[in-house]
Amino acid sequence: MRNIRLTIEYDGTDFRGWQQQIPEHRTVQDEIEKALKIIFRTKTKVIGSGRTDSGVHARGQVANFKTANRRLKPADIQRALNANLPEDITILEVKEAPKDFHAQYSAKRKTYSYTVLNGPARPAIDRAFCHYHPYRLNVASMRKAASELKGKKDFRAFMAANPALRATEKDKDTVRTMSRLDIKKQGDLVRITVTANGFLYKMVRNIVGTLLAVGSGQLAPRDIKMILAHKDRQRAGKTAPARGLCLENVEYGKARNRQ
Amino acid sequence: MRNIRLTIEYDGTDFRGWQQQIPEHRTVQDEIEKALKIIFRTKTKVIGSGRTDSGVHARGQVANFKTANRRLKPADIQRALNANLPEDITILEVKEAPKDFHAQYSAKRKTYSYTVLNGPARPAIDRAFCHYHPYRLNVASMRKAASELKGKKDFRAFMAANPALRATEKDKDTVRTMSRLDIKKQGDLVRITVTANGFLYKMVRNIVGTLLAVGSGQLAPRDIKMILAHKDRQRAGKTAPARGLCLENVEYGKARNRQ
Repeated sequence: MRNIRLTIEYDGTDFRGWQQQIPEHRTVQDEIEKALKIIFRTKTKVIGSGRTDSGVHARGQVANFKTANRRLKPADIQRALNANLPEDITILEVKEAPKDFHAQYSAKRKTYSYTVLNGPARPAIDRAFCHYHPYRLNVASMRKAASELKGKKDFRAFMAANPALRATEKDKDTVRTMSRLDIKKQGDLVRITVTANGFLYKMVRNIVGTLLAVGSGQLAPRDIKMILAHKDRQRAGKTAPARGLCLENVEYGKARNRQ
Repeated sequence: MRNIRLTIEYDGTDFRGWQQQIPEHRTVQDEIEKALKIIFRTKTKVIGSGRTDSGVHARGQVANFKTANRRLKPADIQRALNANLPEDITILEVKEAPKDFHAQYSAKRKTYSYTVLNGPARPAIDRAFCHYHPYRLNVASMRKAASELKGKKDFRAFMAANPALRATEKDKDTVRTMSRLDIKKQGDLVRITVTANGFLYKMVRNIVGTLLAVGSGQLAPRDIKMILAHKDRQRAGKTAPARGLCLENVEYGKARNRQ
């Protein structure tokens, strides 16, 4: 069996995320599996690096699948997939992967971007890809808060209750290492980029919501330490809307057992 | 009467352009006039810098209108317009303009961008804002061709027959001064930026179509001189699709009679 790795871009607007439990919802994974069934004429299971929520976009989601097909080269698979996928999904790259490559378990780090439009006029052209925040943000305060969040921390305060996982959640290890949390301002755009070795459910959007609360003066940068220490979701900011969030890339290193 | 100047961004995807002759079509001008009627409770005529075609976008369309209202400040008008306009139009700026300012007649220069995606995978996220050209373009040839198009020329070969204007078109002055025609390549994106003191009907899209024909080897850079000289639309390239085109800005100088 060949192991094939995909790099995927999607406009999440009309998807109920990468994958959901409810079969009648439109998901990215289902659409890719439907296209693979047309190409290989057999049911093919696709493994994503992780789920993205309803409405969240990706410029670099990674997935893999196994196939017995020997004839189609990676470039042929890419062309065939893009010909059979709806226009809001595109396959950016197709590569042969080592037998033990697993898009979820082999992932070492992920990077997300979150785009906020902070100006007098709401967006028209980019409206599906940014969150509009009309009141002037104090970006210097947001950067101070961000510096308190970087590093190896227990991010339990930023984890939302996931109804699909509730039973196992209490005992979950909620320590993650956030190696990057940048805030760039360019004109009216504020772009937050975050890299970590893993993310809890809705963690990026809860961190962004907290940074926006700091930027708006509802929280102070020094509150971050207290929020982390109390591990209480109620003290952190609101969950920022999905449309501003984009999975930019997933990094892989050696195979999992050598990490 | 006050004269108010608007800077407008719109996603042209679901519009039949800035304005069309047919009343039942959805147009940007109509939507703005509808919003102004709600705000000022009187019919208010909006003058655009020029029409954009069906599906063409704008990040810097300019328009003006006259109003007897004295109470609403420019920032109030902006807020009221954005609250009453559909989400694919946004008013970026509202300013008081001199009495003789006329968005069309006072315009000195316009700049359009045209975005081509030239890579192995079609776009998903940007699909409404770029034209996908899968076959590798020779950008060096395109730049040579572009240098032949710059300057003061008779662009009759790049003018499409406009059904709304057909009667007057034959005698029309088709000389324009193109002060800028840049081609930038960044990764798989090829971005063409063009500035001129005026544009003939579908001129930018016909120039882009011709540059794409050069980049694909169907025309040579040296053919441009011949195409310009023959003034024959048939010799130039196809009209490039609307979705890649965006009106970036309109420049104004002194009032028209002083130009």
